[in-house]
Amino acid sequence: MSKDYAVIGKNVPKIDGREKATGAAKYAGDLKFPNMLFGKILTSPHAHAKILSIDTSEAEKLPGVKAVITHKDVPALKYGISPARWDENIFCIDKVRFVGDKVAAVACIDEETCYKALKLIKVEYEVLPAVLDALHAMDEGAPQVHDEYPRNINTEIHQNFGDLDKAMAEAHYIRKDYFVGQRTYQSPIEPHSAVSIWKDNKLTIYSSTQSPHYFQYYIAREFGLKMGDVRIIKPFVGGGFGGKLEPTGLEFAGSVLSKLTGRPVRTFYDRHEMFAHNRGRHKVYMELTTGVDKEGKILGVHANFVSDGGAYTSLGVATSYYAGGLLTLTYEFENYKFDMIRVYTNLPACGAQRGHGAPQPKYAFESHLDNIAKDLGIDPLEIRLRNARQPNTVTINDFGINSCELTACLEKAADISGWREKKGNLPKGRGIGIATGSFVSGAGYPIYRNDLPQSAAMIKVHEDGTAATLYTGAVDIGQGSDTALCQMAAEAMGYRYENMKIIAADTETTPHDFGAYSSRQTLMSGSACKQAGEEIKKQILDIASTIMSLPPDDLDCRLGIIFSKSRPTAKTITFEEAARRFFVLRGPLLGRGVYHVPRLGGTFKGAAVATSPAYSFCAQISEVQIDEETGEVDVCEVWDVHDCGQVINPMQLHGQVHGALYMGVGEAIWEEVLFDDQGKILNPNLGGYMLPTALDMPIVHSELVESYEPAGPWGVKEVGEGATNPTMGCFNNAIYDAMGVRIDSLPLTYEKVWRAMKEKREGKKEV
Amino acid sequence: MSKDYAVIGKNVPKIDGREKATGAAKYAGDLKFPNMLFGKILTSPHAHAKILSIDTSEAEKLPGVKAVITHKDVPALKYGISPARWDENIFCIDKVRFVGDKVAAVACIDEETCYKALKLIKVEYEVLPAVLDALHAMDEGAPQVHDEYPRNINTEIHQNFGDLDKAMAEAHYIRKDYFVGQRTYQSPIEPHSAVSIWKDNKLTIYSSTQSPHYFQYYIAREFGLKMGDVRIIKPFVGGGFGGKLEPTGLEFAGSVLSKLTGRPVRTFYDRHEMFAHNRGRHKVYMELTTGVDKEGKILGVHANFVSDGGAYTSLGVATSYYAGGLLTLTYEFENYKFDMIRVYTNLPACGAQRGHGAPQPKYAFESHLDNIAKDLGIDPLEIRLRNARQPNTVTINDFGINSCELTACLEKAADISGWREKKGNLPKGRGIGIATGSFVSGAGYPIYRNDLPQSAAMIKVHEDGTAATLYTGAVDIGQGSDTALCQMAAEAMGYRYENMKIIAADTETTPHDFGAYSSRQTLMSGSACKQAGEEIKKQILDIASTIMSLPPDDLDCRLGIIFSKSRPTAKTITFEEAARRFFVLRGPLLGRGVYHVPRLGGTFKGAAVATSPAYSFCAQISEVQIDEETGEVDVCEVWDVHDCGQVINPMQLHGQVHGALYMGVGEAIWEEVLFDDQGKILNPNLGGYMLPTALDMPIVHSELVESYEPAGPWGVKEVGEGATNPTMGCFNNAIYDAMGVRIDSLPLTYEKVWRAMKEKREGKKEV
Repeated sequence: MSKDYAVIGKNVPKIDGREKATGAAKYAGDLKFPNMLFGKILTSPHAHAKILSIDTSEAEKLPGVKAVITHKDVPALKYGISPARWDENIFCIDKVRFVGDKVAAVACIDEETCYKALKLIKVEYEVLPAVLDALHAMDEGAPQVHDEYPRNINTEIHQNFGDLDKAMAEAHYIRKDYFVGQRTYQSPIEPHSAVSIWKDNKLTIYSSTQSPHYFQYYIAREFGLKMGDVRIIKPFVGGGFGGKLEPTGLEFAGSVLSKLTGRPVRTFYDRHEMFAHNRGRHKVYMELTTGVDKEGKILGVHANFVSDGGAYTSLGVATSYYAGGLLTLTYEFENYKFDMIRVYTNLPACGAQRGHGAPQPKYAFESHLDNIAKDLGIDPLEIRLRNARQPNTVTINDFGINSCELTACLEKAADISGWREKKGNLPKGRGIGIATGSFVSGAGYPIYRNDLPQSAAMIKVHEDGTAATLYTGAVDIGQGSDTALCQMAAEAMGYRYENMKIIAADTETTPHDFGAYSSRQTLMSGSACKQAGEEIKKQILDIASTIMSLPPDDLDCRLGIIFSKSRPTAKTITFEEAARRFFVLRGPLLGRGVYHVPRLGGTFKGAAVATSPAYSFCAQISEVQIDEETGEVDVCEVWDVHDCGQVINPMQLHGQVHGALYMGVGEAIWEEVLFDDQGKILNPNLGGYMLPTALDMPIVHSELVESYEPAGPWGVKEVGEGATNPTMGCFNNAIYDAMGVRIDSLPLTYEKVWRAMKEKREGKKEV
Repeated sequence: MSKDYAVIGKNVPKIDGREKATGAAKYAGDLKFPNMLFGKILTSPHAHAKILSIDTSEAEKLPGVKAVITHKDVPALKYGISPARWDENIFCIDKVRFVGDKVAAVACIDEETCYKALKLIKVEYEVLPAVLDALHAMDEGAPQVHDEYPRNINTEIHQNFGDLDKAMAEAHYIRKDYFVGQRTYQSPIEPHSAVSIWKDNKLTIYSSTQSPHYFQYYIAREFGLKMGDVRIIKPFVGGGFGGKLEPTGLEFAGSVLSKLTGRPVRTFYDRHEMFAHNRGRHKVYMELTTGVDKEGKILGVHANFVSDGGAYTSLGVATSYYAGGLLTLTYEFENYKFDMIRVYTNLPACGAQRGHGAPQPKYAFESHLDNIAKDLGIDPLEIRLRNARQPNTVTINDFGINSCELTACLEKAADISGWREKKGNLPKGRGIGIATGSFVSGAGYPIYRNDLPQSAAMIKVHEDGTAATLYTGAVDIGQGSDTALCQMAAEAMGYRYENMKIIAADTETTPHDFGAYSSRQTLMSGSACKQAGEEIKKQILDIASTIMSLPPDDLDCRLGIIFSKSRPTAKTITFEEAARRFFVLRGPLLGRGVYHVPRLGGTFKGAAVATSPAYSFCAQISEVQIDEETGEVDVCEVWDVHDCGQVINPMQLHGQVHGALYMGVGEAIWEEVLFDDQGKILNPNLGGYMLPTALDMPIVHSELVESYEPAGPWGVKEVGEGATNPTMGCFNNAIYDAMGVRIDSLPLTYEKVWRAMKEKREGKKEV
């Protein structure tokens, strides 16, 4: 547990920073290949309709059109990222299920011809009644989105831990609240794009993906190819946030178009199409009932949720489990009931988005807990301290917690924000709120192939020792994993970061890794990189011992200098010298590492869902100013205190906190995907979908507490998603503190605040 | 020595065939980078001149010019590919030494601006007397090309093996002949091109190179960079033939231009500039004196050569040693004197070209031996059989020969060509000639860093076993090494060629390998690939033994099927299954291999020169038709019989023989770089420099003899260069057989044949 690290814990520059800043970095949409065609997908204009006929003959006649495909030209095998619920086809066969559902595709010599050709495809539809409201999707007689799923129930979870009835019977106080979380969209700066090249029965796809190895598996499965004949390469990726984890129509259609034409095909979504594809955060209806004792100690919780999954499963099974499962992390209680139904509707499918399932329930629970605190006259900080999760505990739903400094996070956040001075003493219109968060450091069970290790890594040292290349399947989508993993490899090798190179996220050249999701890479990929680095160091010290005539056990290597541990002032040799000798005598100097998840406490009775080897914790406090005339919410300042174990790169870590908070700020106040009564998105662009700008961001204080996670390499754990979780609840609590109004649905728009204040003034509403 | 191979010895398709045939393959000149500039080099118009001043101010003012550099902007450190004789500067400092010497360079926004800018650079010269004739370069008072090399002597070799004086005294017959070999140029279809990207003290160069690892070493040395900070990547390369082995002004100037401008810079030679850069075959003046006994058995040889090296050393030291050293290979004799002087002249530098040093001496010696045979009344085939090298012998200059089927080659060539029926029985004007050849299978001593292994390799098996990637520094420049090495790796692994992928010739991602020269890769890189493959197989069989409950020693793997050797009909499992199990239990499945040259017999007294672990042998017979009116030489048919050990890919092998023969045909009859009296090339283009076309090619019969080379993996040895060696002598002997005239200088042009016939008719010349 020595903190005397040479490479990790330092602010090294991002390994790809210069390329990105200078515009040299190539994204999937920048790639050009000789003879490359452009591919576009024709989508449904109806939320729900039978396909009566498709006539592609006019489109085929248009000069410049090289291929037109429909469901007849592609495998009928259903796919999806959730194995138990494969419910998507490459193209719709019998009917379309949302405005944007995939019907056909064209490959043309240029983009303009694509759009012309799409207009020439004649599809005859019989419009069906659509179900657009999740709460009525289960009604008797409601339109059925998939015949195989009666009453439109896609996922249904009913879990009961402890004895909730007994807990409620013994409770001093019970409160029930209702909240609604809105549908949002990830808004990565780079829309999804892919280039597919199918030749000689081998398929290569350059894709804007969070997981080349998942893509490889699903694409090989769909087309009946061997995995070794499918190569997925991730170029630079401009953000994913969960939306680029599953293969899309772009890859499937592009592959078939390439196979038919014998030419590379670039398929791409424009921003509008990205919104239609969606896979963003579910709209979720949440009822929470909590019983507490006199001191506000939580005795039992009942979470009863319904979520709107849209037309397909996407990652919604995992989202559903996360929604309730992760609610047990931050506060300790022994009785818990979780009921969840995810329904199909005729809207775009929802999936994973930063914090995956957790942020909206957290918004609800933190608001709910503040209500209880208010009812009991307990300070919101105090009620959280009384219930806060402690280290080395197990949640009622069987998640094993090792490190947990949530109490320290709360105390530090209170200190640096001046909570105790401010709370109750701010002028009207100004308020302070608090909330907590927690998140997994990787999902213990991958989406498929449970038997595989989570991550593997290789390191090759250059023959003269002046450089080393890390090969990892881990996926840098902007979060900086390439940089962090090179730091970790260099630390383990006793080498320098400046001399590291990296080859990442190419299924052909890099070892398996499940990719960038569930905040898994620093812990999981990092473990594999550490092991590979240690294997290098062992070999280096072994050869050094023959050069230095000292036992290997007495040697160590740090920043490329090999020295005697017992006589640190004695003569040293360089890593380079030892590496060169190694190559001469023994050949290429290679190290390999592999990370398996250890057997975890959690089984989440009845389903193999994701528990994690480690959990981060954080506390957030925010201060807001409300304009009483307009309801405008000005978030002035946010204090985030994180327990994320050992830090690898502080600059990147705080960048992740800022980014997660940014996402939370947007979802808290402005962002919502809106539909008209025909199921068509009203705001499918960055004009209508209100992302915050830099000027909308509050002052952010990102701080850490000392922590060491035994399950992580050097004690690391999650940071990339956790800070999104508390933000919406934190702001809602600050608004309540400022104005005494409680907003029970997201986003916490100015209008809702204004309306709530008005209703309160008029005595219409009491919270 | 079982020949029951599963993958090698088969005609698998070239791994890059489709990409090349469809035009998808990217060569260095096809690469484009954002913000890329174009760079061109200003060269000297004089063969020899002092540089009085260089004024770049006008060029710098031209819009679109981003940098102009001269010797003042680059390191003054001399470089060269021959370590003992570094004599080149990136740009000339005090004087220019040939028409085409490098003076300055520009980087501009486009090619056109480059040419304009070059014209605006004002260089004031004081023209000096030039030495353009190698035979007068050593004269007292001759102009000095380099002050450090008196009398213009660049390389001087005087070797004496055995007791030549005694041998000559005992000889039944002694003959002395004089021959001249001309200067030629390699004419790769792709002119040399490079893109240099220098940023953050790291330099990446995409170069049309035969040896990324040599380039890396020399470029790092020149710029004082660590090797790990220099990355050389070979894209597809369109031929090299020796001319792309050494780094050129393109890489050096391009690197500095990129450093100064902060932008990628593409530098390139057009065809004219390729000729001026040259580095092709030396013009060489050859005196041969041989003593034989009554039966024509060679007793002693004196080779006395002078070669025209041009203005710089290039690879000329090695060329000089090869010129005499390799003369001892094909025929056994015990007394040998070799005198060689390579002189500097004010012409472009000469270097390595297919057969490196050997073809012209071989032309001379094979002509000379035919003269002796004629003088003694011995059949040319017979004199060769009497002297032919036998296996498991050591040459007088200490080259250890293992396999050698030269006698079988001669016999087979005689059989298939009908030599014994044709010789003496062809009508006048038609003739048949014979010659032999031999070449190294790699140079035992690399050009630098003798302590390094020659080749290393890595193999990574894909996690589900359906593909494996070979990482090698070996360099495919069109000869097919990527294909052959994948075959060898698959054979060693017990795997399938179709599932192999390859990453090659990139100093950052692939292990060290010296590259494509001296016909080294099949034996040397192949050995490393074989070892890596065997390491994979060992691990696969080990894990398979746990699955199959059989001892690993009883298991073998062939084409991806693992079976019991003792019970071949028992249940088998697949490589894929074992690989997947391996990955789950033990992590990435990696193999590594390394090849060191064993201690060789040859020391070539007095100099560490290249001897080889193995030598190929071949016999060639050709039939020509001479037009008595015009002297036109029509080569009707050539029979080449090669002893190249085990064949990896017969189609590629015969392709190499055809290619080498093509080169020999051109050099024999048409090709010569010609200069005016100012040292300017008269024919620097493919109009004036007469390469044969497909229509000029004779019918070629390429055949093999059974052979196994113990030093090579599976018994392989050289094939790529050997067939060039005998061709010129073989044709000359056929011309003599046809017309009774002996042409004593290359090329054997129609004019020379016509003139010789005329002189013979007029009684002016006797051979």
